[in-house]
Amino acid sequence: MNYFSSHFKLGILGGGQLGKMLLFDTRKFDIQTYVLDPSDEAPCKIACNHFFQGDLMDFETVYNFGKQVDVLTFEIELVNLDALEKLENEGTKVYPSPKTLKLIQNKGIQKEFYIKNNIPTAPFKRYATLKDLVVDLVDSNIQLPFVWKCTEFGYDGNGVKVIRQTTDLENLPNVECIAETMVPFKNELAVIVCRNPQGEIKTYPVVEMEFHPEANQVEYVICPARIDDKVAEKARAIALNVSQQFNHVGLLAVEMFQTEDDEILVNEVAPRPHNSGHYSIEASYTSQFENHLRAILDLPLGNTESKVAGIMVNLSGAEGFSGDVIYENIEKILGWNGVTPHIYGKKQTRPFRKMGHVTIVNEDINEARRIAEDVKNTIRVIS
Amino acid sequence: MNYFSSHFKLGILGGGQLGKMLLFDTRKFDIQTYVLDPSDEAPCKIACNHFFQGDLMDFETVYNFGKQVDVLTFEIELVNLDALEKLENEGTKVYPSPKTLKLIQNKGIQKEFYIKNNIPTAPFKRYATLKDLVVDLVDSNIQLPFVWKCTEFGYDGNGVKVIRQTTDLENLPNVECIAETMVPFKNELAVIVCRNPQGEIKTYPVVEMEFHPEANQVEYVICPARIDDKVAEKARAIALNVSQQFNHVGLLAVEMFQTEDDEILVNEVAPRPHNSGHYSIEASYTSQFENHLRAILDLPLGNTESKVAGIMVNLSGAEGFSGDVIYENIEKILGWNGVTPHIYGKKQTRPFRKMGHVTIVNEDINEARRIAEDVKNTIRVIS
Repeated sequence: MNYFSSHFKLGILGGGQLGKMLLFDTRKFDIQTYVLDPSDEAPCKIACNHFFQGDLMDFETVYNFGKQVDVLTFEIELVNLDALEKLENEGTKVYPSPKTLKLIQNKGIQKEFYIKNNIPTAPFKRYATLKDLVVDLVDSNIQLPFVWKCTEFGYDGNGVKVIRQTTDLENLPNVECIAETMVPFKNELAVIVCRNPQGEIKTYPVVEMEFHPEANQVEYVICPARIDDKVAEKARAIALNVSQQFNHVGLLAVEMFQTEDDEILVNEVAPRPHNSGHYSIEASYTSQFENHLRAILDLPLGNTESKVAGIMVNLSGAEGFSGDVIYENIEKILGWNGVTPHIYGKKQTRPFRKMGHVTIVNEDINEARRIAEDVKNTIRVIS
Repeated sequence: MNYFSSHFKLGILGGGQLGKMLLFDTRKFDIQTYVLDPSDEAPCKIACNHFFQGDLMDFETVYNFGKQVDVLTFEIELVNLDALEKLENEGTKVYPSPKTLKLIQNKGIQKEFYIKNNIPTAPFKRYATLKDLVVDLVDSNIQLPFVWKCTEFGYDGNGVKVIRQTTDLENLPNVECIAETMVPFKNELAVIVCRNPQGEIKTYPVVEMEFHPEANQVEYVICPARIDDKVAEKARAIALNVSQQFNHVGLLAVEMFQTEDDEILVNEVAPRPHNSGHYSIEASYTSQFENHLRAILDLPLGNTESKVAGIMVNLSGAEGFSGDVIYENIEKILGWNGVTPHIYGKKQTRPFRKMGHVTIVNEDINEARRIAEDVKNTIRVIS
């Protein structure tokens, strides 16, 4: 197949920042792209070859869009699965596969998949409704504290809550959910795996999510993770196994916990380029986006190793500001060594809205960490 | 000035591959762009915010385009200078300045500028027409061999010819030209300088153009140049001086000869991102394109040092092929360590047409050089 400056068409469901960063590489290779997104202001609207506005959960819209392209991928999981399955049955290459997506879209099914395939994960129970969970709790079949997770449509901390006392269950939606045992962990890690249809498979180095000591929020994604080599090796091996068990094609970001006694537990996966791999644009020989593209087009995978250490800081809308966005002090951080802001292109900020990220690279990871902290304390997303 | 996700407008004259690569960074920073190019199939057409089709040499077209934007730059020197001057006089920021462009557009004036400012360059004489040159030669005021260069509109070897015997002058156009003394040199070097309006100035490392031993054609651009540190230091100092003498804003690529006795002579300059800096996308902390953008927007300049060694190989149309392009064996080179093809997006190949380039990065420059040779011998631009 000739992908380069040809009539080949790659379809992308979703036109957000992940798609936008993927388009840097389709442009670099001059691969023709079709993008579908509900918003007329989607960051992908420019830089793709053809933009279509439409509902990603609507069967007809997704099916008709998919019929126009040769290979179909997605940058968001919330897409119409039936349409993807029909397209795949009719011969369109859909990567990652709708089968994988089906296993992942529901967290209960995802967790059951891990158990079935001997992939270590925190113990849990699955409930059709919140009421069923409450009954089980009253019957003392589960113990406080635990982590409540709704099984579908959660993202970025939405749909996840630590339940320490029964009153914490008030106001939760009465939907399908799981109750997961709270496992004390010392690190949250992630490994991005890429795999092509021929079965070539590579992992990026293990990254570490460093949390704010009080706010319990991820502040920095650090590559490589500052952990013991043996633990890193174990995390990579588990991530590879997860990708192989899914028979996955494309990127799979595997989020994991490192427990107090150095066990690795798989938390959840994302079948696409992932926030934990953004550092790779500047730090890696091949960015996660280029490797996603290589994987779904069955091209050889690029080197996943790093040229230098990389740290990512998210740029989220500051509390108390809504409206036309201003990146306060961005000129200041641009003057520092190895600092690259990525502005996603959303014109309006809101509290906590993901507006961009900043990558800090340096030969010395400690120096990168120091600069990252300065970046975090300097730039502000206001209006 | 708020450039990021704002109403600020950057205008770019020319929509070719240099503009296309610049747009990766305007997209990364979400800076609004207007592009003017004569071709409806310009590589910049997608990924800019507003594309205008029009003649870059036409006063009205360039002037009206420029009136719409806040800062105006160009990716090609062949633009209407009068329009730029009028725009600058009326308050539009034009970077690089039309004054510099005026000094550079004509190679005779450019050479005289070097002489006047004590910048080392090969001896030359300037002629209003080829006939005047011939008269001077007949009168023995200049000696064979010498290098004939037409003073305007030459590019990529067009408009340059080594004259070894008088018959070599046949068929040359009867235009303004210079006759330059042939100075034996052992290396062709280049240094990219960036400078912002505040006067912050940085150079990229010295790169080396390695020539094919027989064809006398540049085959590889190698960063850093494999030359003595003292010579590199001299080349950087001369390049810095050239940029300062021009009072230049933006990128200035300074091409130089290293003579047999390690003198540095300035050959010519280009006031824009340059082929000799393409390696910087993968190898440098800040690419030449991002630094051009930072410079013309008066932002702090990024780190010009390299993370790893970088080598660039041009992808030109193979002889004997015209028509819909095919990049033969591109899948093969994608499997090699640190290899990144850039496909400019021209749908039709012609012999020697610049269709793209390939960057090879590696910690070890010798290993990069070995892979670069394999790349050169493997990929072919055919139809």
